Amino acid sequence: MYFASDNWAGAHRSIAERLLRESDGFAAAYGASDLDRRVERRFAEVFERDIAVLFVGTGTAANSLSLASVQRPGGITFCHSEAHVIADECGAPDFFSGARLLGVPGAEGKIDPEKLKEKITAFPQTAVQHGRATAITITQATEAGTVYSLAEIDEIAEIARKDKLPLHMDGARFANALVSLGVSPAEMTWKRGIDMLSFGATKNGCWCAEAIVFFNPEKAREMPFIRKRAAQLFSKSRFIAAQFDAYFENDLWLDLARHANGMSDRLRAGITESNGSRLAWPTSANEVFAIIPKSAAKRAEEKGAKFYAWPVPPATPELVGPDQTLVRLVTSFATEEADVDDFLRCLAG
Amino acid sequence: MYFASDNWAGAHRSIAERLLRESDGFAAAYGASDLDRRVERRFAEVFERDIAVLFVGTGTAANSLSLASVQRPGGITFCHSEAHVIADECGAPDFFSGARLLGVPGAEGKIDPEKLKEKITAFPQTAVQHGRATAITITQATEAGTVYSLAEIDEIAEIARKDKLPLHMDGARFANALVSLGVSPAEMTWKRGIDMLSFGATKNGCWCAEAIVFFNPEKAREMPFIRKRAAQLFSKSRFIAAQFDAYFENDLWLDLARHANGMSDRLRAGITESNGSRLAWPTSANEVFAIIPKSAAKRAEEKGAKFYAWPVPPATPELVGPDQTLVRLVTSFATEEADVDDFLRCLAG
Amino acid sequence: MYFASDNWAGAHRSIAERLLRESDGFAAAYGASDLDRRVERRFAEVFERDIAVLFVGTGTAANSLSLASVQRPGGITFCHSEAHVIADECGAPDFFSGARLLGVPGAEGKIDPEKLKEKITAFPQTAVQHGRATAITITQATEAGTVYSLAEIDEIAEIARKDKLPLHMDGARFANALVSLGVSPAEMTWKRGIDMLSFGATKNGCWCAEAIVFFNPEKAREMPFIRKRAAQLFSKSRFIAAQFDAYFENDLWLDLARHANGMSDRLRAGITESNGSRLAWPTSANEVFAIIPKSAAKRAEEKGAKFYAWPVPPATPELVGPDQTLVRLVTSFATEEADVDDFLRCLAG
Amino acid sequence: MYFASDNWAGAHRSIAERLLRESDGFAAAYGASDLDRRVERRFAEVFERDIAVLFVGTGTAANSLSLASVQRPGGITFCHSEAHVIADECGAPDFFSGARLLGVPGAEGKIDPEKLKEKITAFPQTAVQHGRATAITITQATEAGTVYSLAEIDEIAEIARKDKLPLHMDGARFANALVSLGVSPAEMTWKRGIDMLSFGATKNGCWCAEAIVFFNPEKAREMPFIRKRAAQLFSKSRFIAAQFDAYFENDLWLDLARHANGMSDRLRAGITESNGSRLAWPTSANEVFAIIPKSAAKRAEEKGAKFYAWPVPPATPELVGPDQTLVRLVTSFATEEADVDDFLRCLAG
Repeated sequence: MYFASDNWAGAHRSIAERLLRESDGFAAAYGASDLDRRVERRFAEVFERDIAVLFVGTGTAANSLSLASVQRPGGITFCHSEAHVIADECGAPDFFSGARLLGVPGAEGKIDPEKLKEKITAFPQTAVQHGRATAITITQATEAGTVYSLAEIDEIAEIARKDKLPLHMDGARFANALVSLGVSPAEMTWKRGIDMLSFGATKNGCWCAEAIVFFNPEKAREMPFIRKRAAQLFSKSRFIAAQFDAYFENDLWLDLARHANGMSDRLRAGITESNGSRLAWPTSANEVFAIIPKSAAKRAEEKGAKFYAWPVPPATPELVGPDQTLVRLVTSFATEEADVDDFLRCLAG
Repeated sequence: MYFASDNWAGAHRSIAERLLRESDGFAAAYGASDLDRRVERRFAEVFERDIAVLFVGTGTAANSLSLASVQRPGGITFCHSEAHVIADECGAPDFFSGARLLGVPGAEGKIDPEKLKEKITAFPQTAVQHGRATAITITQATEAGTVYSLAEIDEIAEIARKDKLPLHMDGARFANALVSLGVSPAEMTWKRGIDMLSFGATKNGCWCAEAIVFFNPEKAREMPFIRKRAAQLFSKSRFIAAQFDAYFENDLWLDLARHANGMSDRLRAGITESNGSRLAWPTSANEVFAIIPKSAAKRAEEKGAKFYAWPVPPATPELVGPDQTLVRLVTSFATEEADVDDFLRCLAG
Repeated sequence: MYFASDNWAGAHRSIAERLLRESDGFAAAYGASDLDRRVERRFAEVFERDIAVLFVGTGTAANSLSLASVQRPGGITFCHSEAHVIADECGAPDFFSGARLLGVPGAEGKIDPEKLKEKITAFPQTAVQHGRATAITITQATEAGTVYSLAEIDEIAEIARKDKLPLHMDGARFANALVSLGVSPAEMTWKRGIDMLSFGATKNGCWCAEAIVFFNPEKAREMPFIRKRAAQLFSKSRFIAAQFDAYFENDLWLDLARHANGMSDRLRAGITESNGSRLAWPTSANEVFAIIPKSAAKRAEEKGAKFYAWPVPPATPELVGPDQTLVRLVTSFATEEADVDDFLRCLAG
Repeated sequence: MYFASDNWAGAHRSIAERLLRESDGFAAAYGASDLDRRVERRFAEVFERDIAVLFVGTGTAANSLSLASVQRPGGITFCHSEAHVIADECGAPDFFSGARLLGVPGAEGKIDPEKLKEKITAFPQTAVQHGRATAITITQATEAGTVYSLAEIDEIAEIARKDKLPLHMDGARFANALVSLGVSPAEMTWKRGIDMLSFGATKNGCWCAEAIVFFNPEKAREMPFIRKRAAQLFSKSRFIAAQFDAYFENDLWLDLARHANGMSDRLRAGITESNGSRLAWPTSANEVFAIIPKSAAKRAEEKGAKFYAWPVPPATPELVGPDQTLVRLVTSFATEEADVDDFLRCLAG
């Protein structure tokens, strides 16, 4: 019953075996191998266009270096108030980009477009005192387990376009969002106006495979230097490539995300039908936020379930009753039906 | 005939299989797993003392963050003029530490102690204009394929101690140096006065396993934040731990380094005995620098040999004749005798 | 009728003449002159204790370098949501300190102590993800024209002490606050628990004189390097010293602040008694925030009055009616009674 | 007998009086006053073209921010090995620009063009490991008291142009170089290919007046933010403007520089004719480097002369005999003939 995070899972067998297979032989280092090149082309196919792609080691690196590529002195990057970049990366995006992150509120983990416009207006390009708007980043799927619809992305992208602000997507759970929406990678990104993507695969079955995707390769010209200076160019880069190679093969990545989301669907259904527990808000990817009796939480923990209590959103302090607790449950490619059912039984008492 | 670099090799089978075995199951993320903890203790055993150890993804990260931990405004870090940190890391150590690297010359890749003293004297702690000496870093084995003797490390450490400068060792080829000297890890590091070590395992059989070792754990207190802010805390950190686990098992790491050095010995012997080629300078780890006829270089390349032509050291411009070329040959755990012999045959013509 | 800002004023005649007198002769550069030393001692007398003091060129520099001196990787500095450091310095404090500024709300420009405690709790020293609380900065007088009482400073200082967070005071309008409270410099700073002070004199009659004061000189050890690396060590530093020399002479600085505050008192009284205009909130230093008819604002501008319309605080959107405007009026050592009276006449219509 | 540095002098009376005159009245802050604008136009006239000009507080700021404007990740800035930027600014240019400074040797304080070419070749734009050449900076007049001829500037500029590297001139002693060459500001800068200039006036009679000049205003677009974030935008900026206003009036600046150079000429002539002392190398601006008997140095110091002993250039260790010392003598607008003659008498014994 491991629901603490999708990064508690290991690596999917196909990916692990692909790594083993790759261990033999020699190949050019620092991203220059044939396999690196081949997987870069595979990315272009996945996204149906010419792109620039750079492998890095962590999601924090993917986000930080994406944002570093578009920053200017005095820059302000807008993100959701609870986004990973502002809340969980120890200031790495600020450090690498030299810009200040500024949280924009919004229900269910999504930036409120009206609030975003207000904030942008407060940082005009001409007033040196305040600093200036230089980028927007959204998270898909969000930290709250929700998924921006295509129309919602359009709305943010329209703002970005109007103000000429580069638009970044933190796709640590890209595949989960994709299968939730049932659209293509292109439809969820550059066709909407996304300029840069942190394409995460670690949470969805790899052990360490993250990529930065620039949909306009021209804009990536500084990236090789930005990456190297950030200590994110791996000498045996082909082992990251190998993971992506297996990840994309026969659409494994989409299958794994469907499985993870399906396990969350099962959790959601079980909690909805339960007595005493309920969903805190609707989610559609591989995260479930539930309000459960404290007694049930205790019971589950005693039986070995792993999950995190979650802070009550400041905007809805009345959400959780005195004998209740808000918990986050994350499912992954490795979650099994039996674990879900065991957990639901703990809730039932 | 892959002699371009030891990072062209893949991963040793035992390490790759250990990764595969680790792919199952769930474990706490971000370095908090049992395996992470166990491997940290293993490090302490290897070094025969209480230490702090932090896993990172690249050697550049290990060097940069080690140096970042001891830097102060206006700081100057002394390294050999041709050290990896100054010559091959795109300014990452400067970027992360905020200090300027300053090259100190010295024969065969080793810092000249007298020149080091001179440079340090030029940056007193009291003159804000010039900046101030704040750290020294040496590379073991060096970029020139040589190895500091224990007495030579003592000499540098004595200077560091006298001027209260933290002393870092870039151990990207730590194991190769160790077996070359035939000493223990403790003897080559903290018993000499090394404060911080970049412990590299990638070049010697892992695919991605680097560690920063602090011999005084007190001095590592800021490191968890430094590492996280640098985007070097891996969510599935246990996969780095797993590689180290296999690396240390039954002294595999020493065996691999012995093999790599042995292959270089074979190269050295062959070149010494050859007609027309000769060693550029004596080396004792897994790198060989040879002056070979241009015709031999061409012949080897045509037969598929991979190696780099190397710049002639500015101090000895007359080293290489007009029909000759200076080449660097690196052997690894994966180099085979047959490759060495084939290459030597190419030299012979 | 110059009420746009106190930095629209020039320099007080005594200070300007002292600069002229200082123009003759030779003296050691970079802060080593006798005058520099003497004025440093004068600062110690003013603050009734042993201190470290460093002259810099701008208030932004004083704030940024003060905060840089106490920062650690992943650091978070707490300030009021509308503080100058977060709202008007183009990210300079973030840039120099490497920390993220985080705004804490509070009425009338003062940090709400309860909200501060909540925020600090959200950034524990042990969780690398979120970053960690590393400093608190308050502004005295505040950007809203109010002044923290000694008891209010105590309350913030108690929080800082409990969490071992260095406490900085942005004293761009230090003298105005001081005479408003009628206390001594010591009472308003180190006796309350302030660790570092940006002591501003530019707004109160100098043309360019700012100082960083460390109440524990031990904590200032890195400052000479921090200042020099920040390009804030002036070669002819004695001209900054000379301004402070005249500023302190015969308590000129307190007289100037009393005058500025008195002019604001006159404005406050006039507005309170007026028909149609009113104070937006009570202030007690040299800034007045008033809600005036748009017609009156237009009238004043036409007669040459200079002042800024001010954004309505988000917490009180209903503060300002449709035909009204919120304006900020700042008085200075150079404001004359006639200007105040002329402005009040404009309001009257 | 003040020959320690030209920044030991105070401020020229005309400039000090202009400051006094400016102290009255009110004006827009942060560089927006009429006087700021007028002096900006004056700069354009002085340089005979449309330019962008930004006032800052120190020469280190002017250099650092100029270089910051053209830097890219992994960048290398080339300067003379003994240039102020690399030797005397505590790493400020590295800090602000994020680039590493790399010293290029050359006789008499001037970059050797052949060595510069070699260094640039070592940092190609395509090899991420080494970093990449991104800027060149020369000092005019040099730290060694010499002046680049127009032809010598052309030679460096030709290299910069060929490699598309922006070319910066550190003009801390711009006026001294100008009158030494007898050319116009335009001829010594943009007509030669200089892109950015640190225009120093502090050493030549102001107390604090430095400007950054961009000869292509388009390239200065980021500068207002770079300057503000660097804490170098002065609220009462018009006091810097006022100094420049007086500085340029009736060519005062050229007269002051001519006087300073003339005093050095007098020193040079006296030393050349002396027994026992001699010039260390030929200089032509307001610095003189002389080899004098230790006994003479002692005698001069006892009579109150202020000057610095200077390190013997490493390339010419035999320059100075055992009973001799190398000294630097700097003259300024405030140096008087009597001081020079007194000093020469000390030498004579």
